[in-house]
Amino acid sequence: MSYMRSRLITLWYCLFLLFITTNSLAASDLLPSWNDGPSKKSIIKFVQTVTDQSSPDYIQPADRIAVFDNDGTLWAEQPMYFQLAFAFEQVKTLAPQHPEWKEKQPFKAVLENDMKTVLAGGEHALLEIIMATHAGNTTDEFSQTVKNWLATAKHPKTGRPYSDMVYQPMLELLAYLRANDFKTYIVSGGGIEFMRPWSEKVYGIPPEQVIGSSIKTKFEYRDETPVLVRLPEINFIDDKAGKPVGINQHIGRRPIAAFGNSDGDLQMLQWTVAGSGPRFTLLVHHTDADREWAYDRSSSIGHLDKALNEAVEKGWTVVDMKRDWKTIFAFEKK
Amino acid sequence: MSYMRSRLITLWYCLFLLFITTNSLAASDLLPSWNDGPSKKSIIKFVQTVTDQSSPDYIQPADRIAVFDNDGTLWAEQPMYFQLAFAFEQVKTLAPQHPEWKEKQPFKAVLENDMKTVLAGGEHALLEIIMATHAGNTTDEFSQTVKNWLATAKHPKTGRPYSDMVYQPMLELLAYLRANDFKTYIVSGGGIEFMRPWSEKVYGIPPEQVIGSSIKTKFEYRDETPVLVRLPEINFIDDKAGKPVGINQHIGRRPIAAFGNSDGDLQMLQWTVAGSGPRFTLLVHHTDADREWAYDRSSSIGHLDKALNEAVEKGWTVVDMKRDWKTIFAFEKK
Repeated sequence: MSYMRSRLITLWYCLFLLFITTNSLAASDLLPSWNDGPSKKSIIKFVQTVTDQSSPDYIQPADRIAVFDNDGTLWAEQPMYFQLAFAFEQVKTLAPQHPEWKEKQPFKAVLENDMKTVLAGGEHALLEIIMATHAGNTTDEFSQTVKNWLATAKHPKTGRPYSDMVYQPMLELLAYLRANDFKTYIVSGGGIEFMRPWSEKVYGIPPEQVIGSSIKTKFEYRDETPVLVRLPEINFIDDKAGKPVGINQHIGRRPIAAFGNSDGDLQMLQWTVAGSGPRFTLLVHHTDADREWAYDRSSSIGHLDKALNEAVEKGWTVVDMKRDWKTIFAFEKK
Repeated sequence: MSYMRSRLITLWYCLFLLFITTNSLAASDLLPSWNDGPSKKSIIKFVQTVTDQSSPDYIQPADRIAVFDNDGTLWAEQPMYFQLAFAFEQVKTLAPQHPEWKEKQPFKAVLENDMKTVLAGGEHALLEIIMATHAGNTTDEFSQTVKNWLATAKHPKTGRPYSDMVYQPMLELLAYLRANDFKTYIVSGGGIEFMRPWSEKVYGIPPEQVIGSSIKTKFEYRDETPVLVRLPEINFIDDKAGKPVGINQHIGRRPIAAFGNSDGDLQMLQWTVAGSGPRFTLLVHHTDADREWAYDRSSSIGHLDKALNEAVEKGWTVVDMKRDWKTIFAFEKK
């Protein structure tokens, strides 16, 4: 009886698979938000090459690892990294439990919306804010806090939920790669536990394929229940030269494709192309001040300078957002 | 043309899938090396429950995470952890480059096969040996060294390659779980980079599903090529209370099934059962001095004491190797 049903389910699944495969491959375009041009062509050419079993450059599905930076590559990062907006809101939420923050920097400045003073405190101030807002609770509690924030917070410029601030062309690219048996990973300087609660829903990337910066956690019993407590101590910074380290630690194989947008992604791209066989590297260049933002060499957020030089020198694909993307955000009026 | 071929391939794949599904589920027994008894029954009952869509305890495939300790759970660990045998052999291989080792402990003792003196040095001595043999090279070089060792080294008791010292019933269990859409992970106190070069071939577990202890690595250029250099500095110890931490760091979800054999696995099992919904935990108890080894509460290797008490108290499945396993190693005469 249950064998019979299992066989039926398998048959249905097969028919479904056949249906979607036929349809998706027959569809004239899986990347509708990309304008025809060199960027789109380079992506399609790479994918067709490594999935063509008759090609000397064929790569077996298990090795089709693609890594994506998050901030500025999959979703926007202006006017400030979204995780920082989360941290600032957490300072306000937690302030009643910390009356001393009214007089203590950098918290005082956050509570007074004085971003200039906050940023003047540099990395040290930001780290203090992160530790005060990201540690002390359990992993389950933190995950719920992030979910609650994402469900209610609005982007200051568009008034949209932050999860609407994802790039439609990149969502299509993720789906296109997965339809071709790629395993898609996030490799971000952002917090691993900040991204995991929503990465599957927003990007279709499950928690085990999210790599990011982290603080230490500790296993202990609270009220006779085992929990992981988040400690105010850096565990790993998944940025710049940390990205190849994080990739190796989590994946244990070298990606064949890497996507980024800033100098923080340079070493990840270098590590990717240094493997043997066909490789693909792409930088998203923010060039559209009207529909998004335009920034690169002189921006502190998403600073893109050395990586842009190397991309030009080595012929990596550079997406010109203004030229290459028909749609940037799904909520844009068509 | 290529769409046509893709459709044909999909159809073939579907027929193949249908064929194997029908066959495997129709097969009377997917765990032939397990004697009929409570251990085998408890495994099958759990898997049938969580995969039965009509059950209130149904669990969707994405959440079917199963974690396995390695030493003493998937392969043997006597007369010493196999990674230690690897380290000792590496000391001998590297000795010509370190003439000072002839007079310096603990290396002197290793070179003289004086295990008593080596072990008398305690953890500190072993750590010195691990750092001297596991660091300094690149990740690619280390991976190759491990592969070379595994291809040639022989177990001191059986004379078999170490990769033959895996438990046949556990290989069947891994395959049975994967056939039911479980994702199988290794969560071991052993070195993550020591296991990854062979885990896929031996267990069908790909590198990205291997979690273990690690040393730090550093991204740098050597001869104009980016490499990850292995540093003589502990990064993470994936043992005892470290196992839930490692699981959370790598997987980001709680397993629904956990398999271990020693007190080093206790917290991993506690963390697993503390989740809501159906959970399965199993301890392998080494009870067969004839076919394998018999040890538990008084052994330093694979020390099993508190976890055994808790298993009995809480009704976890305890495999009695002598009673439950028809075959232990595939090379045994039938």
